[in-house]
Amino acid sequence: MIQLNVEEQRIAKKILSIKTESGSHSPSIFSILERVPEVNIKVDACFLSNPYATSLFLRYLKKDLIDTGKLRDVLEFYPSQNRAIAEIISNLINMPKENIFVGNGATEIIQAVMHNFVEKKIVVSIPTFSPFYEFARDDTEMVFYKFRKEKDFLLVADEYIDFVKKVRPDSIVIINPNNPSGSYLTYNELRYILTNLREVKNVILDESFIEFAFEDERYTRLSAMCLFYDFPNLMVIKSMSKDFGIAGIRAGYAVMDKEKVSKLLKNGYLWNSNGLSEYFFKLITRSDFIKEYEDVRKMYIIETHNFFKELAKLPKLKVYPSKANFVLVELLDGSRSIDFVLKLLVKYGVYVRTGNDKIGLEGEFVRISARTKEENQIIIEAIEDLLCSSE
Amino acid sequence: MIQLNVEEQRIAKKILSIKTESGSHSPSIFSILERVPEVNIKVDACFLSNPYATSLFLRYLKKDLIDTGKLRDVLEFYPSQNRAIAEIISNLINMPKENIFVGNGATEIIQAVMHNFVEKKIVVSIPTFSPFYEFARDDTEMVFYKFRKEKDFLLVADEYIDFVKKVRPDSIVIINPNNPSGSYLTYNELRYILTNLREVKNVILDESFIEFAFEDERYTRLSAMCLFYDFPNLMVIKSMSKDFGIAGIRAGYAVMDKEKVSKLLKNGYLWNSNGLSEYFFKLITRSDFIKEYEDVRKMYIIETHNFFKELAKLPKLKVYPSKANFVLVELLDGSRSIDFVLKLLVKYGVYVRTGNDKIGLEGEFVRISARTKEENQIIIEAIEDLLCSSE
Repeated sequence: MIQLNVEEQRIAKKILSIKTESGSHSPSIFSILERVPEVNIKVDACFLSNPYATSLFLRYLKKDLIDTGKLRDVLEFYPSQNRAIAEIISNLINMPKENIFVGNGATEIIQAVMHNFVEKKIVVSIPTFSPFYEFARDDTEMVFYKFRKEKDFLLVADEYIDFVKKVRPDSIVIINPNNPSGSYLTYNELRYILTNLREVKNVILDESFIEFAFEDERYTRLSAMCLFYDFPNLMVIKSMSKDFGIAGIRAGYAVMDKEKVSKLLKNGYLWNSNGLSEYFFKLITRSDFIKEYEDVRKMYIIETHNFFKELAKLPKLKVYPSKANFVLVELLDGSRSIDFVLKLLVKYGVYVRTGNDKIGLEGEFVRISARTKEENQIIIEAIEDLLCSSE
Repeated sequence: MIQLNVEEQRIAKKILSIKTESGSHSPSIFSILERVPEVNIKVDACFLSNPYATSLFLRYLKKDLIDTGKLRDVLEFYPSQNRAIAEIISNLINMPKENIFVGNGATEIIQAVMHNFVEKKIVVSIPTFSPFYEFARDDTEMVFYKFRKEKDFLLVADEYIDFVKKVRPDSIVIINPNNPSGSYLTYNELRYILTNLREVKNVILDESFIEFAFEDERYTRLSAMCLFYDFPNLMVIKSMSKDFGIAGIRAGYAVMDKEKVSKLLKNGYLWNSNGLSEYFFKLITRSDFIKEYEDVRKMYIIETHNFFKELAKLPKLKVYPSKANFVLVELLDGSRSIDFVLKLLVKYGVYVRTGNDKIGLEGEFVRISARTKEENQIIIEAIEDLLCSSE
């Protein structure tokens, strides 16, 4: 069982007070570094994005904007309006621009959907990404459907359909792959659920981690966005932060019924993109960029699953199946999740996320994200040492 | 009277179709350049910001982020949450962080205020910045108070107070200096109005252009933000785009009652800043940056007023008094504002804004913004030639 010594406890106390201020999100490593400088963070395995994609993006940014001096135009002038950015995305995903709503990150879209379309009752599957319940209006009733750890946190389609039919919500949320469990619903399962739940007014599908999932051996890119044509009650939300490693830019979009887009744009969301997010959306329509992106996406998936396999070999842990770029790990030796996280951070400089603030996650869980190959190795060695050195 | 020849009419038609798509805002020069490449834009005098401040910001950005490689951190990771950015601004303006709401540009704040606090009736002074009526909820009644050109579009305090007392709105909006007129209300006049309108639930004061205004000969920075302590019904909205020349970054904040901030943050606006806006807010708390900024702010004000004086010397024009970085100009020779704008753009490459889509602006008006000294000279020469070559 993992225990903190006196010095570790002192530092841990400072970190915990920052955590309290961050609500149900992990404090950023910058907040920690600023206020607890004695912590030497080597790997941020809390953070969920493809680090290779960040490097690729930065390479293009340098070539296109910094070296040419065009960065000035991007930062000085107003970015294009929502509908103009939607037109860029329309070319990217080959869907009508009238069905695309551009967001200042997916979080803004979740807020817009929760405030404007979700009505009296929503079914949220837990554990989940907290804004799906935190952003609810006061008059929205939240009904939780609980993923069971005995079922590896997988959504069991028929059971879920029965649950929703009984509760009769106006809205449901599915994150695929789910955060924080990484559990994945196949395209066919999703289609089956949608076919059986046509009566639900709003089906919110968050595909923020979909580009890390795969159904074939060639890791073909997945998305259920096209199901929107058959199911107009479907709203698909897409964060760009994870796949492309650009959380600081705030870029996201959603596909939804065109009346819904019009309602949102009627009296708001005019200039919610910024110069760099507009550049980013233009960049990902370029074949030269996407060709290189596909390589780093596949490489990252392969390394991620190698990392998961190495984690699964460690003692005193259960690693749950994941098709995201992170994995949920249960501690089996009686250690508390928070002690594991704090000791790993303070003693080894490896920052992972505790599951103990996630509603619907009972037991001692940590969520660990895959980083670069070298960083994954540091994580493995740190956890191994931590587990072996505890009684 | 200005008239377009056949070729100019052909190009003008293409520009007008882009304008239609942009609603009540001017299309960006990038939209024009992309779709009407035959137009050679030399000066964008539609755009309202201090170009010297942009250069200054870019110099710091290069030194702090690009040359050090820290740009990666800013773009890869999540920016801090709303309350953490509010804390940075709190140090800047010396007001409690609980009273500060951070926005993805001032436009997002206007939307948040119009959707969440404005209730049944709002008095908007026209001509104005269009989001103040376009972002209103369907159930909000809009009552217009009209600035009169005979009074140089100045707000006449007693007349305004009487009007508001008669209409009994729950909310009023004052932009100071006003956009598009540039008319300025002194600190004392503003205080007088607030003292007499304590019964109005929400007094929305937009100070997006306040750093270009001055009441003394040393151009001391102005703001009525501190009046918030005496008038808790006051909400002061501040765009950073204009003063600092960084519209593409999307940075703004507002000072308001702490219950209002809590209401907004209760179920939204968690991560609405981006990495660069967080960097920017930290930068403007630094004394090295602010010292240089003060120099470029004063220099720009001086050049702006020299430019206004040159404009006023031109024939067939009336230049209205302005304490913003733009000026409202009335055409006196019977020319249509739209012909003036199109001819100036197509023949001279100088882009100014027509006033003919502004509610409450009757007559033929154009709004011209001050740019760099060299660009101002180009604007003056172009308008002079245009006016002299027309009959």
